[in-house]
Amino acid sequence: MTQENPSTQALKWTSGSLHVLDQRVLPETILYEQYQDAEGVADAIKTMRVRGAPAIGIAAAYAVVLSLKQHYVENDENWKNKVKQDIQLLSESRPTAVNLFWALATMQTALDEQSGNPIAALQSLAEKIHADDIAANRKMGELGADLLKNSKGVMTHCNAGALATGGYGTALGVIRSAHKRGLKTVYAGETRPWLQGARLTVWELAQDGIASTLIADSAAAWLMKSGAIDWIIVGADRIAANGDVANKIGTYSLSVLAKQHDVKVMVVAPTSTIDWESESGEQIEIEQRNPNELLNECYIKTESLVNAWNPVFDVTPAHLISAIVTERGVVLNPSEQQGVRGLQ
Amino acid sequence: MTQENPSTQALKWTSGSLHVLDQRVLPETILYEQYQDAEGVADAIKTMRVRGAPAIGIAAAYAVVLSLKQHYVENDENWKNKVKQDIQLLSESRPTAVNLFWALATMQTALDEQSGNPIAALQSLAEKIHADDIAANRKMGELGADLLKNSKGVMTHCNAGALATGGYGTALGVIRSAHKRGLKTVYAGETRPWLQGARLTVWELAQDGIASTLIADSAAAWLMKSGAIDWIIVGADRIAANGDVANKIGTYSLSVLAKQHDVKVMVVAPTSTIDWESESGEQIEIEQRNPNELLNECYIKTESLVNAWNPVFDVTPAHLISAIVTERGVVLNPSEQQGVRGLQ
Repeated sequence: MTQENPSTQALKWTSGSLHVLDQRVLPETILYEQYQDAEGVADAIKTMRVRGAPAIGIAAAYAVVLSLKQHYVENDENWKNKVKQDIQLLSESRPTAVNLFWALATMQTALDEQSGNPIAALQSLAEKIHADDIAANRKMGELGADLLKNSKGVMTHCNAGALATGGYGTALGVIRSAHKRGLKTVYAGETRPWLQGARLTVWELAQDGIASTLIADSAAAWLMKSGAIDWIIVGADRIAANGDVANKIGTYSLSVLAKQHDVKVMVVAPTSTIDWESESGEQIEIEQRNPNELLNECYIKTESLVNAWNPVFDVTPAHLISAIVTERGVVLNPSEQQGVRGLQ
Repeated sequence: MTQENPSTQALKWTSGSLHVLDQRVLPETILYEQYQDAEGVADAIKTMRVRGAPAIGIAAAYAVVLSLKQHYVENDENWKNKVKQDIQLLSESRPTAVNLFWALATMQTALDEQSGNPIAALQSLAEKIHADDIAANRKMGELGADLLKNSKGVMTHCNAGALATGGYGTALGVIRSAHKRGLKTVYAGETRPWLQGARLTVWELAQDGIASTLIADSAAAWLMKSGAIDWIIVGADRIAANGDVANKIGTYSLSVLAKQHDVKVMVVAPTSTIDWESESGEQIEIEQRNPNELLNECYIKTESLVNAWNPVFDVTPAHLISAIVTERGVVLNPSEQQGVRGLQ
């Protein structure tokens, strides 16, 4: 495989259906499931067959096309309600990643502008959202790699790779680009409870011939103390206007620890991840997933003395972030730059 | 069950054999394995059937008795070499917990003072080491609970409980004592890669009717930011003279994060955990366990692009610790008190 044509694709669109790589069963099993309707895609998002903010947005865009294909009838306005219901269903699949709402709004706006059969135009738009995401990732990869020059080593958290996007990846896009320029040392945190780092990130990097070293999440501080890394590189699920970043639980922890160890933090995300409506991270809804994702089976019962707290995202304040890399450019030290407002 | 007679026992000594609760299969299975020789006990320590610094020390003391029972022969000095070999084997079972070496040295010194059949005296000594540990834990439990008054919530890491000691526990001993005085809110980190928190700590607390909430290790910073806790309470595998503390990987991370969130850190350990020979944490050997504990099976092969870094302890510098609680008393802010030297 070559990096110009990365082997890893979370989503494949063929005429009429969306093929979703089931990320719950990686790396043991490579299984694409085929979806013909929006309801199925909403379920695939909810159950985390597909995850990662940009990938969720792209999947939702294709799901709108599937909804149109299923419901559009010439000379009968009733299909519009059915599509609206599907868009509503999709918007309720996960709460934190803003790309989902951005993609649905983009599709809705285009739909409202159509007269006659909208399928071809909307399909083109979904394909464009997908292609634009890959192009944005490649651009961000180069911009991020520029910042890394002579890095002795980097660490990433969760999976912000080809699997989380249209392709190439955000944080892993930077690592891919930096690897081409000579970056040798890449650490990945396991990322409990879903182990996106252990199951997805190291797998995806190995597919492209990039070596990586897995660590327990709680070993990151000790790794930083050892001096092995100088950058933490992560993606984002939502960026507030002031530069606060919602991302996988543990990102806040890494950012606080990084500050104490003179390690820099780079957030890599397309501008579709920016929520201009959120002035700061305080307005971002943090998804709480089922405690059962953490609990041993014997505690999954009512009146158990053992419970779990399972927030799957946290918010890193802008002042702990050294650089936010987007396809429109880089914001250094966002807390000193009025956040990301300069990108608008 | 009552807390005066806690239900959880990692080690049971009956005339002639040591029964070890296999902690690898908890909480699903409660399985005691019976050991009749030192070799078996060394293996039980190495394979983490029994773990936790004080419990390892006690198991090793009983193992010396088993060795004597197996090898002692009247009027033939050769048994001494065989026992020496067993002690050597036991000392090589795990490298970081100093209680192991302390218990073996204590047994060896007593053995050297014996003439005639040493079995009864050494068995009494091993039983005394065990009983003293429980008494020390109860004392530390009260001393630690004194520090916690009006705590809104605490978090613990790994398992420093009855399972890690002769009984009652160090960190969990404090939580048991504080619970009797009204402490309501207890969080436990999962503690990858072995999940001592998820498998052992929450189970052990539930056995005594104490409710707890499990979190992913990387959610600890977000928990601290929420304001839910004011103390982190942990055990120790080795304490240097200056108050630096080696403990389960992640303790250093929690301590750095605690400092940034005005959360205090309490280390609870008997003085047998103090290594007077180590001036600072830099002299403490940190055990690296097999990377396979972290790796997906598909990466366990030569020339894999995916590796793992698996240090299972880290060192927390004394200046991040608010209190070291021992059976001889409490050292507040050890970095301002010449470490723990005042306890000698």
